[in-house]
Amino acid sequence: MGLFSKDIKTFEDLYKHGLQDIYYAENQIVKSLPTMIDNASDPELKRGLQQHLRETQEQVKRLEQVFKLHDETPSGTKCPAIDGIIDEGSDLIGEVEDKAVLNVGLIAAAQAVEHYEITRYGALIAWAGAGPRQGCGHPCPQSQRRAGGGQEAYRAGGAAGQSQARNRERHPSPPAQSRGVAPRGRKPPQAGAEEAEEEVGPPFLSREP
Amino acid sequence: MGLFSKDIKTFEDLYKHGLQDIYYAENQIVKSLPTMIDNASDPELKRGLQQHLRETQEQVKRLEQVFKLHDETPSGTKCPAIDGIIDEGSDLIGEVEDKAVLNVGLIAAAQAVEHYEITRYGALIAWAGAGPRQGCGHPCPQSQRRAGGGQEAYRAGGAAGQSQARNRERHPSPPAQSRGVAPRGRKPPQAGAEEAEEEVGPPFLSREP
Repeated sequence: MGLFSKDIKTFEDLYKHGLQDIYYAENQIVKSLPTMIDNASDPELKRGLQQHLRETQEQVKRLEQVFKLHDETPSGTKCPAIDGIIDEGSDLIGEVEDKAVLNVGLIAAAQAVEHYEITRYGALIAWAGAGPRQGCGHPCPQSQRRAGGGQEAYRAGGAAGQSQARNRERHPSPPAQSRGVAPRGRKPPQAGAEEAEEEVGPPFLSREP
Repeated sequence: MGLFSKDIKTFEDLYKHGLQDIYYAENQIVKSLPTMIDNASDPELKRGLQQHLRETQEQVKRLEQVFKLHDETPSGTKCPAIDGIIDEGSDLIGEVEDKAVLNVGLIAAAQAVEHYEITRYGALIAWAGAGPRQGCGHPCPQSQRRAGGGQEAYRAGGAAGQSQARNRERHPSPPAQSRGVAPRGRKPPQAGAEEAEEEVGPPFLSREP
């Protein structure tokens, strides 16, 4: 059993509740990532999600270290926020048929997950007083840095992926190597003047019909 | 009616769905912030949340500009993620009696909201190709910068607030000016050696009983 908000009376309780919240969240992320991996059709995105899964498994272990440090049994408390974030990604997987569009949606879903990890670890680090002393042995700053790194990688991949998904819509049969999502961190190809004009937005955003 | 994920067939649909998702989210945030403001007992935190409310109201207007630019009626689509994030904050408000502890929890709740805004605007900006060209008139980069700025302010306030909440637990009757949460952006007071040792963590994290 986790600590519910009604049990929070002291700052210590709040910290423990936060720890149980992110422990639940990380375990839910571990459960959900394999489905995202299975549905990512771009090999590089798939590898990125697999790396995210490995890192999240490490983060679960780090949280268990924190529980153990204090003779507490690791436990989670239901977290509607991560449930909602994961549900949104799952909805996309179930409904979006176009593989390239789904890849771009999966990147956004993974970024939302990373941001949730960043904000919850940020609170825990602030509450534990570990922020300015990352060498003190508290494992949360390491988890937050990992989440931040993943977020940056997804962001770079997303910029390339959305460019390629748009290209695919304009040219229904592109060369095989331009399909799907670009490798994480790779910049989109340089565009010419006409291409640059179209980069302002997808058709929905364009002022011209 | 918003665009549900089952209606997403093209990249354009995905972009529109993202716009409707954050439009719903921002409106829910506008509805939830007044309760957070009413329950924040620290005047500076209250002002920070009021500022967050004003900025979110501006962000709603910017999103309506984007809809209008394309002859679309502004509409939202239900977003379980922001609902979950807001529910977690609401649970704290209903259950945590200690005002200082609640203030610290409210900061974390507001940070989670800001991070959700950052990640969703990040996706929209990438999808609209607006990232590298913030002068193109797309209003989302401005909203994302505002969310990022608020996040930084809450982070600074949170570090100070958690320190003061701990002090309050150690000294049940502190001077009035050290109660509650410090003004946003103000650094926690310099601590002496003994105080610094205790900064490693709250009682739950401490190795000593």
